[in-house]
Amino acid sequence: MSIPLSIEWTNKKLRIINQQKLPLEVDYLTLETIEDVYDAIVTLKVRGAPAIGITAAYGLARAAQHYETNTLEEFYQHLEKDALYLGESRPTAVNLVWALDRLQRVAKDAATIQEAKELLLEEAIVIHKEDEASCRNIGEFALSLLENQTKVLTICNAGSIATAKYGTALAPFHLGSERGKRFEVFACETRPVFQGSRLTVWELQQSGVDVTLITDSMAAHTIGAKGIEAIIVGADRIVANGDTANKIGTLNLALLAAAYQIPFYVAAPSSTFDLTIENGKEIPIEERPSDEITHVAGKQVAPLNTKVFNPAFDVTPGKYITAIITEKGIIYPEYTKNIPALLGTEKGERS
Amino acid sequence: MSIPLSIEWTNKKLRIINQQKLPLEVDYLTLETIEDVYDAIVTLKVRGAPAIGITAAYGLARAAQHYETNTLEEFYQHLEKDALYLGESRPTAVNLVWALDRLQRVAKDAATIQEAKELLLEEAIVIHKEDEASCRNIGEFALSLLENQTKVLTICNAGSIATAKYGTALAPFHLGSERGKRFEVFACETRPVFQGSRLTVWELQQSGVDVTLITDSMAAHTIGAKGIEAIIVGADRIVANGDTANKIGTLNLALLAAAYQIPFYVAAPSSTFDLTIENGKEIPIEERPSDEITHVAGKQVAPLNTKVFNPAFDVTPGKYITAIITEKGIIYPEYTKNIPALLGTEKGERS
Repeated sequence: MSIPLSIEWTNKKLRIINQQKLPLEVDYLTLETIEDVYDAIVTLKVRGAPAIGITAAYGLARAAQHYETNTLEEFYQHLEKDALYLGESRPTAVNLVWALDRLQRVAKDAATIQEAKELLLEEAIVIHKEDEASCRNIGEFALSLLENQTKVLTICNAGSIATAKYGTALAPFHLGSERGKRFEVFACETRPVFQGSRLTVWELQQSGVDVTLITDSMAAHTIGAKGIEAIIVGADRIVANGDTANKIGTLNLALLAAAYQIPFYVAAPSSTFDLTIENGKEIPIEERPSDEITHVAGKQVAPLNTKVFNPAFDVTPGKYITAIITEKGIIYPEYTKNIPALLGTEKGERS
Repeated sequence: MSIPLSIEWTNKKLRIINQQKLPLEVDYLTLETIEDVYDAIVTLKVRGAPAIGITAAYGLARAAQHYETNTLEEFYQHLEKDALYLGESRPTAVNLVWALDRLQRVAKDAATIQEAKELLLEEAIVIHKEDEASCRNIGEFALSLLENQTKVLTICNAGSIATAKYGTALAPFHLGSERGKRFEVFACETRPVFQGSRLTVWELQQSGVDVTLITDSMAAHTIGAKGIEAIIVGADRIVANGDTANKIGTLNLALLAAAYQIPFYVAAPSSTFDLTIENGKEIPIEERPSDEITHVAGKQVAPLNTKVFNPAFDVTPGKYITAIITEKGIIYPEYTKNIPALLGTEKGERS
């Protein structure tokens, strides 16, 4: 039993778990070239904003080791070209461009090409370690909140394999497992893409956590029948008043938590905050292709020409969120006041 | 455009739609023998308690036409044997045994074997017509409640194809379509068995109703984003205080309706009431096999040995139900008083 790592960096080799093949197969891929890295991101073999950022950082740093340029100037040009190439692999992943920019900035401090190559490798490792530390902190704060609770419900995969290690919403369960705290986690399957069934169940099983799978439609009944004591979820974006965009289905759970009077926690790093937006109503919501719903596992279940509404995420009003757990501490309402009090008034560093 | 009928009786021939092949194929089956009828029920080619009862009634009446017995005594023995056989095809379907018993009782009034045969055929037709009339009444009462509403959400398939015609929760949409009232119906896909995607979308399309498919996890967001004005669902069992067992996911919707302050209606014939039970907590909840959740469309999505919780239905407390719509009228809270006031103190006739 151990916490699964989706990215490993050993002897300057970059190895990832092919998340497309989970949970039926745990297939490790060594990414040799920058094209391998691009492909892994585009085809969702690596997923989760932090994991994508880390993979891209290693990919760029590794590629730069092989540049044969005569001047630093040429080196930087080559680096910029490769960074632009990787940056296009998943344009909406904020951490991707953030990580690639950070590497380029660091390389600028070098006096020689050799130094630039070393700085790039070191910075990729720093990005990786920082994310692990950040998730570990989130896990510690979340564990403190869940001290007296055992039965917890979650949705999607805000997990170890989406980050360097531990994850965000799943971090307390992994840490708890290491320390002998026995959580009973209930995972919503997370339609339409089944991240709960495919990823969260697998990941928690690896870590020795007691996890039970339910459909999203079973949440209310399960809270009552199984005595769920808290709900914890990740976040895609948190705005100034605490309104939180996350995987579709999160809002259902927040409203059920309110109905059953159990706490509803959001776990996310400070980079997830976007304080340039005041209210969740301003967050644009991506709609995805209808065949994600009309077809399952490649098979058509709904009639031809079915009209579909397929929003990728929803926005939970801050008033339904008991607390937001970050790597810097726990934020309670009133969010408009308490988010900047903990994080400063700037936008999150990665956003 | 016409309301789809799952059962047709023409020239003493019994024809059903094979609901297992919907929505990709509309495959009609003529059920010749009593074994055909048994098989159609067991393999879910016909589903929905009223539709099962009607099919079984025709099946038994048809079979009896071919009995070659010398005495009424022998005729009744044969009839009882066949009724017991059909009754085992789906033991939990209350309407099945109710319909078979009703046929046997009617046959007992016959003076001759020929008369018994005729009485059986007539009674099967009466059962069929009664259900259509009952559903039509439910539709009329539901339409009156939804007079000022257009955007309505539903779950599962409490539809025409589960009954003689019209259905229960879907009856107002079919009637509305006939009269030029333009509903915009949102259908939850209804995990784990996808009755929403497979059956409700198809059925409402046939009738010319504007229907949009969503996953169950999208309900809260859709209520807000699309301005859903009411939710209407069917029922498996309604007890004395109004607590209602229905397809898993119904309770989620009832709690969301409360959060959004929109009406939540249950539509069901009086036969669905079980006044021998005072409180929904006493309703036993069937748990179904785990592979309904771990596998979709025959393909495994969750890891091997995944622990699953798979309750087939949930119980919505009466306090979350705005009104219960029956063929005899609309029942408002307080249910403990108003259910017997409309229906009498006896258990529903079919239960």
